[in-house]
This record gives sequence, C-alpha cells and structure tokens, in this order.
Amino acid sequence: MRIVVVGATGTIGRELVKALRPDHEIVEVAHRHGPLRVDLGNKPSIEGLFDEVGPCDAVVCAAGVARFGPLAELGDADFNASLANKLMGQVNLVRVGRRYLREGGSFTLTSGVLAREPVEGSAAISMVNAGLEGFVRAAALELEGGQRINVVSPPWASETLAALGRDPAGGLPAAQFVPAYRASIEGSRTGEVLDVRRFL
Amino acid sequence: MRIVVVGATGTIGRELVKALRPDHEIVEVAHRHGPLRVDLGNKPSIEGLFDEVGPCDAVVCAAGVARFGPLAELGDADFNASLANKLMGQVNLVRVGRRYLREGGSFTLTSGVLAREPVEGSAAISMVNAGLEGFVRAAALELEGGQRINVVSPPWASETLAALGRDPAGGLPAAQFVPAYRASIEGSRTGEVLDVRRFL
Repeated sequence: MRIVVVGATGTIGRELVKALRPDHEIVEVAHRHGPLRVDLGNKPSIEGLFDEVGPCDAVVCAAGVARFGPLAELGDADFNASLANKLMGQVNLVRVGRRYLREGGSFTLTSGVLAREPVEGSAAISMVNAGLEGFVRAAALELEGGQRINVVSPPWASETLAALGRDPAGGLPAAQFVPAYRASIEGSRTGEVLDVRRFL
Repeated sequence: MRIVVVGATGTIGRELVKALRPDHEIVEVAHRHGPLRVDLGNKPSIEGLFDEVGPCDAVVCAAGVARFGPLAELGDADFNASLANKLMGQVNLVRVGRRYLREGGSFTLTSGVLAREPVEGSAAISMVNAGLEGFVRAAALELEGGQRINVVSPPWASETLAALGRDPAGGLPAAQFVPAYRASIEGSRTGEVLDVRRFL
C-alpha cells in the first residue's frame, strides 16, 4: 500500500513510519521538516498536499495541535486554535483526501484518551478529541468506494511525559500504539474508535 | 431557583418552561422572540445577556444550530457555523455564565443522540454533539463553588420530525425530555451525559 503519514516526524509518526516501512510505501508528511509539508490548520495547505501526493491507499494522521490549560485561563484563541487544527485539520484531511484515496482505502485519525477520561486542564482537548470521534462514527456511513475511516485513541506517550518532565511510567511508549493503527490500516473495520490499550 | 432557559421558545424549551415554572423562577431567553435575546454564535451577545440577567441558580440551554447534510455537500461554512453555534455557543454560555451562577448552581446543555448513533447526513452534528459531551466531562472537573455541569442527549423530538414531514413515531414528544433536564437541574450529578431515554 501507498500510505501517507501526516505527522511523520512526531512521537507517534516516527514509530508508525518505522513499523510500516518494511511492508508498505510510506509518504512522509510533516509540519516543519522534510520535502512534504502541511499546515493542518490551513485547508488550502491540505489541498496542496494531496495535489502533490496524488493517489494513495491510506492516509494516517498522527498530528494536530490542541491547547492544554485551566478552563479559567483558556481563551477564545485557545479554543479556536484547537478546533481549527486538531479537529478541523483532521476532518479536512478526510474531506479533501477522499478524492485521492483509492478504492478500499482507509483514513486513520488520532484523538486521545482525554476524550473519555478528562483531567483538569483538558477541556479544549477533550472537546476536540470527542468531536473527532463523533465525526468519524458519522463519516464512516457516507464514505464511498469501500473507503474506511477510524480514529485511534492513544493514552499519553511515555516520550511526551518525559519531555514535559513528568513520570514516563504514566504513559506507554509510542511504539506500543502501532498495533491499533495497523488494525485500522490493514484490517477491515470502519467507524470505530480504537483504544490503543485494547490492542497491546 | 432562578433558572435561565436559553431557547425558551423552541420545541424543547417550551416544555421545560411549562414544567419548571410551578417550582422555580424562570428567565426565558430566545434568539428572535421576547425581551431577552441571545445569539449563541456571538460571544459578546452572551456576555450582554448575563450582564442583563445577573445572578442565577441554573442555566439550561436547549438551543444551538448545527447543519445537517450529506458529507460530500457540507461546506466549510456548514462546519464552521455548527462549531460556532451549537458547540462554542454552549461552551461560551459556561465560560461566561460561571461568573454569574450562584454557589452550587448548575449548567445543563443539550447535545443529541447523533453523537453516538449517527445517521447519513449527521457528520457535522455528530461532531459538535460529541465535542460538547467531551467538554462537559472535562469542565465538570474544574468548576468551582459547587457548580455542576451536565449535558442532556435527546433523541429526535416527535414535533421536529412532524415539522420535517417525517413520521413523528420515530421520535419522542419533547415533553418526555423534561425528566432528564430536571435530573441535572434539581439533582446532584455532574460531568454526565444524560440520555433522555434513561429517564422516561
């Protein structure tokens, strides 16, 4: 399969590229690095990306920014940026990419455990993660030509916790997220929220 | 209790006002009718509303517009309007209203069954309903002074189906939604999605 990985240089994306490369042709896309770039918050940038990439068999997104912070301190800009990037950025990958995805191809997006298991500070992130899951369940009913769509819900990555100066043991190494993504890409399911912890 | 009902002239709001009026002081707010008006899609309008209403014990929202339509035909404007009105409109009622809600007061928002049970054409609505549920679960962790927040998830109202020329038997009369709202307003729960069908 020809698989487009958006967020290929990120914590999750790196592991996906490493794991999938032996079996598939990987098209790496990142925000700031490499030859193929996209700004998820900018729909024309997404259109330009697919125009350049052309037909593919799978689109995987392990990117998207949403703002963490106390509810009392999150501003309009924080909510709007979260909606525009992690939510509508991934929604727009589907809206644009469905014209490039081959028969039977799949979209695999990324939400996160905060959708269902919030913590203090996650109001905007929980909102966009849950919204994305609602979109995926619905969009699956309308994709044509056997196209599929799922969303992977990862817990905290150990690498991310370590970078934040927190205990990595509170999360899982990103390499362990791969089986959930593979289940979406290489399997036959659609319209599902794939909790990484069910695929360990 | 002094209860602000946003969407007081709508299908659900009318039933809420009728049911709650014998026991509470009701402040009716609508989009286009009556002395107190609000445009949910416009945050300054929400700020002006609370400035006028002042302190209250409960804020109930049975309003919010989201766009129904085939995924292939929903445009950027449809997604953006749905996010700005039904999702961020209700989120902003909470962000602004928490400064006016008295100790122990409650927010009760409205999502809908399409969040979890999508149909063809519901991609934008399912997205905003699910997003709202994610927000409510998270915001409940951060409200202070004993403030609570829940979201009621109604099925189709028979009245709405009839107005669309569809079989009213596919839904429930809006009067039957009242117990779920009452459970949020008069009870002690918080951070919950209240499926109307569990309160019949």
